[in-house]
Amino acid sequence: MPLKTVFFISDGTGITAASMGHSLLTQFPDIQLSKQFRPFIDTLEKARTVVNEINALSQRTREKPILFTTIVDSTIREEIGRSQAVVLDLFHGFIQQLSKHWHTEANPYIGRAHGLEDNPTYNVRIDALNYTLSTDDGLGYQLYPEADVILIGVSRSGKTPTCLYLAMHFGIYAANYAYTDDDGQYFELLPELKAQRSKLFGLVISPEHLHEIRTKRKPNTEYASLARCQQELKMMRDLLTREKIPFIDATVRSVEEISTTIVTQMGLIRRDV
Amino acid sequence: MPLKTVFFISDGTGITAASMGHSLLTQFPDIQLSKQFRPFIDTLEKARTVVNEINALSQRTREKPILFTTIVDSTIREEIGRSQAVVLDLFHGFIQQLSKHWHTEANPYIGRAHGLEDNPTYNVRIDALNYTLSTDDGLGYQLYPEADVILIGVSRSGKTPTCLYLAMHFGIYAANYAYTDDDGQYFELLPELKAQRSKLFGLVISPEHLHEIRTKRKPNTEYASLARCQQELKMMRDLLTREKIPFIDATVRSVEEISTTIVTQMGLIRRDV
Repeated sequence: MPLKTVFFISDGTGITAASMGHSLLTQFPDIQLSKQFRPFIDTLEKARTVVNEINALSQRTREKPILFTTIVDSTIREEIGRSQAVVLDLFHGFIQQLSKHWHTEANPYIGRAHGLEDNPTYNVRIDALNYTLSTDDGLGYQLYPEADVILIGVSRSGKTPTCLYLAMHFGIYAANYAYTDDDGQYFELLPELKAQRSKLFGLVISPEHLHEIRTKRKPNTEYASLARCQQELKMMRDLLTREKIPFIDATVRSVEEISTTIVTQMGLIRRDV
Repeated sequence: MPLKTVFFISDGTGITAASMGHSLLTQFPDIQLSKQFRPFIDTLEKARTVVNEINALSQRTREKPILFTTIVDSTIREEIGRSQAVVLDLFHGFIQQLSKHWHTEANPYIGRAHGLEDNPTYNVRIDALNYTLSTDDGLGYQLYPEADVILIGVSRSGKTPTCLYLAMHFGIYAANYAYTDDDGQYFELLPELKAQRSKLFGLVISPEHLHEIRTKRKPNTEYASLARCQQELKMMRDLLTREKIPFIDATVRSVEEISTTIVTQMGLIRRDV
């Protein structure tokens, strides 16, 4: 089957269009796609340029491309709507439904979703990100009292990406502390962690997967050996069980899934809303 | 006006539902909202629990709440559809349109969008994130040849959050190099940066905003003073102009907007698609 072209067109960053489009397209895993991103289409002139591009493609391939659009301005929206394409307008129908239900007119404003204005949650997300960087990997113990959650786990079990995601998306202050067996360290809770016991959450992972990740980073070292990974993970699981700390297996879960599970299980307050 | 309750219900992480819902709701800035997230509703039993919760709320407040749903499984979708609520199904209509246009049945699979399976882009995003952490703030010069883009700018102008966003969302290998006037450093390009000139992109910011950010971090220091911020930013702009390096003003732009602009202006290849 030839490549199907999909455009993501927005008068803002196009992040919502890309996210929604991606989710919808994953339901069609057999379709081979060419994805074209056209963000910041915020003037009629830019809209006309895109429409010309789409029409030329449509005529050349004799197939209408798909457009995922999130356009607030009605003039630009109508211009894009005149393309020789299948337009999936991700905003308009839902905005009309909300407007009708709430008996309120929408107040069109381009780029509000991912911009700075009217976005009081933005600063807290950046602040949370800086917090995570300041406390990453065992730094900044003195900042633990300010944490919403402190992830613990062996080195390379996914703590840092998860903390960064929690911070950037949910505005959650996430620290992490890594266990290793480098110096025969006994796997126990430091006083600084014991003092924050209710905030602790563990990550585990399969020894085979950890071995693979560590091997990429430091091939042929004792640190990356399967035996060492097995040993550390056993000690980690013993610690989590002994101390009754909730944990999740990161082996077959994405950072998005792990983060969402932590927020739900720990009852954390999202600051991005 | 009383709080309007909005539910985000998904059989996966609910990240798409939250992102789309957020974008739509920003068009109604005057509505006061209570947002409820219900991810991982992946069994009929969990669906019934949520429906009971929604119906109880609906009866108590005598107003139907809004549900933003992204549910793939048809049985669960229908169960949620029986709520006493206004259901905005973000997936179903669009999937039907795509299915019709492509003459292909959708292949329903929960959680594919933000999961690990069928997600070859996941590993590259995590790898890019590790790359950014290894090269953050002037570390890892020897890794610059592997960069897709190298951000340069004065300390605290937004380089690190932008790099992390580029890595996590777009799978772009983004390094950054900070200029400061700490030791009377002359603002010029290091040989390591000159060798990667086509990858350089500058961030600038208003002196007042930089002063504010630095003051939060290190109050009453010479580093945070307005005079020092003005001086450094003048030297930074001179460098960018002299070396003809493209740049953007980060003062009134979010990390999402800055990142999208960089990808577009530099013609970077997104690896998340």
